[in-house]
Amino acid sequence: MKKIDGGVTAAKGFMAAGVYAGIKKKRKDMALVYSTVPAKGAGTFTTNMVKAAPVKWDIKVTKESEYVQAVVLNSGVANACTGQEGDTNNLLMAQAVANAMEIPTEAVYTASTGVIGKQLPIGVIQEGVLLLKAELKEGIWSGSLAAEAIMTTDTYAKECAVSFMIDGQEINVGGMAKGSGMIHPNMATMLGVVTTDLAISKELLQEALSENVKHTFNMISVDRDTSTNDSLLILANGLAGNTEITEKNADYEKFCEALSLVTTDLAKKMAADGEGATKLFEVQVIHANTQEEAITLSKSIITSNLVKTAVFGNDANWGRILCAMGYSGVNFDPDNVDLYIESVDGTLKLVENGMATDYSEETATKILSGKEVKATADMKVGIYEATAWGCDLSYDYVKINADYRS
Amino acid sequence: MKKIDGGVTAAKGFMAAGVYAGIKKKRKDMALVYSTVPAKGAGTFTTNMVKAAPVKWDIKVTKESEYVQAVVLNSGVANACTGQEGDTNNLLMAQAVANAMEIPTEAVYTASTGVIGKQLPIGVIQEGVLLLKAELKEGIWSGSLAAEAIMTTDTYAKECAVSFMIDGQEINVGGMAKGSGMIHPNMATMLGVVTTDLAISKELLQEALSENVKHTFNMISVDRDTSTNDSLLILANGLAGNTEITEKNADYEKFCEALSLVTTDLAKKMAADGEGATKLFEVQVIHANTQEEAITLSKSIITSNLVKTAVFGNDANWGRILCAMGYSGVNFDPDNVDLYIESVDGTLKLVENGMATDYSEETATKILSGKEVKATADMKVGIYEATAWGCDLSYDYVKINADYRS
Repeated sequence: MKKIDGGVTAAKGFMAAGVYAGIKKKRKDMALVYSTVPAKGAGTFTTNMVKAAPVKWDIKVTKESEYVQAVVLNSGVANACTGQEGDTNNLLMAQAVANAMEIPTEAVYTASTGVIGKQLPIGVIQEGVLLLKAELKEGIWSGSLAAEAIMTTDTYAKECAVSFMIDGQEINVGGMAKGSGMIHPNMATMLGVVTTDLAISKELLQEALSENVKHTFNMISVDRDTSTNDSLLILANGLAGNTEITEKNADYEKFCEALSLVTTDLAKKMAADGEGATKLFEVQVIHANTQEEAITLSKSIITSNLVKTAVFGNDANWGRILCAMGYSGVNFDPDNVDLYIESVDGTLKLVENGMATDYSEETATKILSGKEVKATADMKVGIYEATAWGCDLSYDYVKINADYRS
Repeated sequence: MKKIDGGVTAAKGFMAAGVYAGIKKKRKDMALVYSTVPAKGAGTFTTNMVKAAPVKWDIKVTKESEYVQAVVLNSGVANACTGQEGDTNNLLMAQAVANAMEIPTEAVYTASTGVIGKQLPIGVIQEGVLLLKAELKEGIWSGSLAAEAIMTTDTYAKECAVSFMIDGQEINVGGMAKGSGMIHPNMATMLGVVTTDLAISKELLQEALSENVKHTFNMISVDRDTSTNDSLLILANGLAGNTEITEKNADYEKFCEALSLVTTDLAKKMAADGEGATKLFEVQVIHANTQEEAITLSKSIITSNLVKTAVFGNDANWGRILCAMGYSGVNFDPDNVDLYIESVDGTLKLVENGMATDYSEETATKILSGKEVKATADMKVGIYEATAWGCDLSYDYVKINADYRS
């Protein structure tokens, strides 16, 4: 299992493009990921009652289509809260790709991200699809252009890829994602596309993805706002030449491990690049009574505005961490909790049995000043643990979101 | 039923004081509320698993003491996460008041607010109690000094009082509260003290208070962080001379109405004065299927960071409101929702049946620029409604909380 360069075009038979179509003012705003052969498709989607048109479409494609071959994505407009007209525009976007690539409309996944409540400029989108077809290429570079085209307030493109061996065949798994704001995925992520040349049954592909998100994208939060557009899509085209995986054997486990490497990397990048973030904030809860409790506690800490502002201010205000654990709904004894902080500058025990140690504030501030800061809460009661990823809450988060539409 | 001047000293037989004892650097930091005769006491408290020492003490007093006569409060140090030493210090604080006023220790409520994890400077507290005794007075002015002394990052003191008639006797109900940050009360509020000269049984006093907070303090949120110290206390000393209320009759209803006027006023002031807030943001959900759903939807909107930053930016980004409703957990049809905004500058329908009306952005911005902004979501399915109060999320919230301890 090794990390390799690239993203959605790292696996055999995948092409991509990213172009400026004219939805946004200046930056690239449309992307296409295409498999040269039909691929198995699977997806996980937002649990928000308000679902964007592309989400409703993709849920149908995932359920009903035997195979998929393309994913078309746009940034700038979310196509959410757009009624019947929004559904029609989404279908027209899928049809434009189907016509251009000569594949069935039901083999096209769609994804949109941007402002809620605005209609897609469908003429611009249809022109954009032609531009995408003209630019469609294999190779790492084209995948990066696609990753760039789905950015909104992201400050850098998010890609990751790994490779491993099955049956003496090299298998590649690569992906891209965008995040930044309205990030609190619930059974999905903002927008993510993963491709692989693995041969695997559609059922196991879906199961691997659904299990995977619980510990990766669903464990990150930027602002506790679960989006209307969260979608994580995966395409597996089988070009690696391995025997198709149809049961949960050792090969399946290898694939799950590879998938986890890719999605954890993308999820952490999404958290670190949260709107206005100055650092990645990782929270690990260990020795909890149950897995569920470890997850709930770590997410409660990672989403607390008061904890996040303290992290921004490099202030070891650990009382806020205990406070956030206390209102999480988990039943525990506060007088039994130990708390540590950690970064490249060292590790420090702040709390022992619910009370402050005689730690040095100066050392604590130094540790918290790192670009990647970790807090660990030791519950000292069980064997379960969980890790969540988030970021600090800065002036820039407020600035970005006070005038996002202008 | 009429509003009158004053707060905790508006009712007959209540005295108060607020002094600088030396816990904080400069500002007043200790308060005392005292009834000249024994009073019935009731309280509601934080549901946070991590409970401050005074909260644990007050729960015991509420349960076991036949009467109470004093409330001593300090700001600057929360006495939370302070272990056995914290419990001892809290007891010493209550004893200091008991000794000074010559009343039983079990008749003294305590309340602390400030930094979590630091021990109370008990010598300073004990000296402070003597200063408080020396300053203890009747009259509106002394109540205001007490309200000032419990402030932390609050920018103004919060008081309210009303009077009404029972049996030809004038009944007064007055209160004070402090809020600002770590405000997301759950079965209680940050710190609030209400006094009344009504004669009422202890059981009904508690029931009136518990029912009251559900629709007042529990409906506000500044930052979705439920504090370790939330306490709302009420003292009823019976000096108004009415026949003691022992059943839920018309007089009981009158008292509930008066209590609601006082606590709603204090709750709204707390929301409007949230840390860094530039405006009060009120959210009403109407025609919901159930009371519970109306409450959940309104609180989901009021606590969304993305909605709050949009309100700060005077940006009618209504998609974020529908998004926050969508992830609240309530099952509803987004295509059936209407949305309005309102302030002194007028009312505007932004959304009809889940989609944008052709409203003017300019008018929307003007309305959102008010000091008190209201959003109304009409679910158009039932008869239930709920109102929640919050505030916008500004640069100053981040500033205040990034260096709260320094």
